[in-house]
Amino acid sequence: MPLDPADLTARLVRCPSVTPEDGGALPLLQEALDQAGFACTRVDRNGIANLFARWGEKGAARSFGFNGHTDVVPVGRREDWTHDPFGAEIVDGMLYGRGATDMKSGVAAFVAAAVDFVTETPPEGAVILAITGDEEGESTDGTLALLDWMAAEGERMTDCLVGEPTSPDFMGQMIKIGRRGSLNAWLTVRGTQGHSAYPHRALNPIPAMARLVDRLSAHELDRGTAHFDPSTLAVVTMDTGNAATNVIPAETRACLNIRFNDSHSGASLTDWLRSEAAANDAAFGTTTEVTVKISGESFLTPPGPLSDLVTQAVAAETGVTPELSTTGGTSDARFVKDHCPVVEFGLVGKTMHAVDERVEVAQIHQLKAIYGRILRDYFA
Amino acid sequence: MPLDPADLTARLVRCPSVTPEDGGALPLLQEALDQAGFACTRVDRNGIANLFARWGEKGAARSFGFNGHTDVVPVGRREDWTHDPFGAEIVDGMLYGRGATDMKSGVAAFVAAAVDFVTETPPEGAVILAITGDEEGESTDGTLALLDWMAAEGERMTDCLVGEPTSPDFMGQMIKIGRRGSLNAWLTVRGTQGHSAYPHRALNPIPAMARLVDRLSAHELDRGTAHFDPSTLAVVTMDTGNAATNVIPAETRACLNIRFNDSHSGASLTDWLRSEAAANDAAFGTTTEVTVKISGESFLTPPGPLSDLVTQAVAAETGVTPELSTTGGTSDARFVKDHCPVVEFGLVGKTMHAVDERVEVAQIHQLKAIYGRILRDYFA
Repeated sequence: MPLDPADLTARLVRCPSVTPEDGGALPLLQEALDQAGFACTRVDRNGIANLFARWGEKGAARSFGFNGHTDVVPVGRREDWTHDPFGAEIVDGMLYGRGATDMKSGVAAFVAAAVDFVTETPPEGAVILAITGDEEGESTDGTLALLDWMAAEGERMTDCLVGEPTSPDFMGQMIKIGRRGSLNAWLTVRGTQGHSAYPHRALNPIPAMARLVDRLSAHELDRGTAHFDPSTLAVVTMDTGNAATNVIPAETRACLNIRFNDSHSGASLTDWLRSEAAANDAAFGTTTEVTVKISGESFLTPPGPLSDLVTQAVAAETGVTPELSTTGGTSDARFVKDHCPVVEFGLVGKTMHAVDERVEVAQIHQLKAIYGRILRDYFA
Repeated sequence: MPLDPADLTARLVRCPSVTPEDGGALPLLQEALDQAGFACTRVDRNGIANLFARWGEKGAARSFGFNGHTDVVPVGRREDWTHDPFGAEIVDGMLYGRGATDMKSGVAAFVAAAVDFVTETPPEGAVILAITGDEEGESTDGTLALLDWMAAEGERMTDCLVGEPTSPDFMGQMIKIGRRGSLNAWLTVRGTQGHSAYPHRALNPIPAMARLVDRLSAHELDRGTAHFDPSTLAVVTMDTGNAATNVIPAETRACLNIRFNDSHSGASLTDWLRSEAAANDAAFGTTTEVTVKISGESFLTPPGPLSDLVTQAVAAETGVTPELSTTGGTSDARFVKDHCPVVEFGLVGKTMHAVDERVEVAQIHQLKAIYGRILRDYFA
């Protein structure tokens, strides 16, 4: 009997798996996978629950992987919800609950598709499921832990699909084939304190900061690339904290965020920021400290066999030809891309992280059908 | 018997007259002035003690005035002082205490000089002393209260000397014939909040603020005038207070201080700031609010009879030809200038407002001699 992905979603939603809690989600999945003949291994790290499951031989020439997470963000103010966020109530064809779209439904759909597939048409090769409980948190002990363990064990995926919600508005709209990178930089410009009435005796860091922020903000990083929008730079805060109008402060700070495409790297942008700051310091006599934290590099799985496979499956099941996109925030695909080609396809993400998060039950079934078709076509 | 200005200084220093307290300072002066035949009136306002004293006829054709204050700034950390800040101890020819230079010694010197002068050589005309207890504070109920009362009573000075410390390094160095004006302006630039990853959907106020601050800071207000240094503009703080690197803030703020000479007015600078902000808003689509507070307009008593009189007296008593200057912070001369020509001359200001504030006893006597000579020459 086929595994019902909506029922599995409902059972997952009832597990209160707010990061870093598992809430019983992974044991529930492991039970279904064990029954279907998957070799399951818990790859927990630093208190985070992760589940690795493989059907077929380790190191098979064709090993299709799914990646996803069962942890969810907090519900926020419980009283704002019109349905129990861990109740999985179904009303008018919509299943309500935290994680309904992001992404217990996605995990349920690929687990159900994989179980049915290996049961009905056992493939030549392996099907791998790498499911984590740490995607919404720091993400340091989640998919990274799974990938580290897989590398150490000789486990590998030849291709991977991350089941995150990817479509902004309607089912089948968008496949993600890469993501922009992201970094934050903190700037501290230092001068010499003094009296406002005698600015020539002080070295005011504020005009230097203003010029630097103006230059960085006005700079065109690029005009976009074949598969990416233009990179963006947003200065998000400038702060001095000087309440005394008769005092020129000794230092002032700013922070900026860059979302960058494949014409940059975290390192190249760090170099650029440092050289802009140095040139500015040379003009003003100030000293600027630049601290950079790279959240993720940009990456791209260029359009090819994997995206073609997913596109054809989506089109066949929904009648929609999905757009290949690199927009949006980060996901665990940024880790998977170091191991194998990876794309992302899942449900409509409209209500993710919101109050009354919900998913159309019919779309969970549709997603399972798409994932099942992908598996059949991949191993055909 | 001549009045000893050092003894009078010591007695004033022992009055703990931290603004707005009088500490017995004005009654002490009034006693000496009453005895010398001055008509004394307390012109207190809103709890602030002020003393008006006139020798001679009201509305005399020649009425020379002295202005000064007996209030002092707080002592700060008492344990940092090596002498009692209200003890007036004399060690190695230096008298120590809060107000020793700023400006109980100045007040003592002009009171002693005036008493001796009217006693020894009663002039044709009037000698007026306008002494306040609110110069170091808000200054709203001090010299302004005295001048308001004088105007209402038909009391007038034909010329006035403010006895504030004026010399940076040595006795006789500098006469102040005017002051730069001062204003503070608060800028708030408003845009539209949004996500750092999608800056085109937001309107970030920070680049607009940076450009505006850069333009204002780089602008040359003037190159100085005949008697004034160039005007200065110092942006003293820029603040946003946004801790979220993934959020573009809705607004950001800055504050600046302008010290301006006689080629500007508070109104002309306010107009300039508003027009710069409007031009910047036009370029960025932002909305900028500009709030201005004018602390004082610039003023000048052009070199002439009054400054010549003081210059000659200083040169005769010290051998130093003083510089005519418009540098420095504000003083009550900014109020007096609306009533009559005014200059400032007093002691060396090095230790004013500092720990272990002190004055050379010999210089108090020298200052009394200078003030006495000014009175004799004025009425000669």
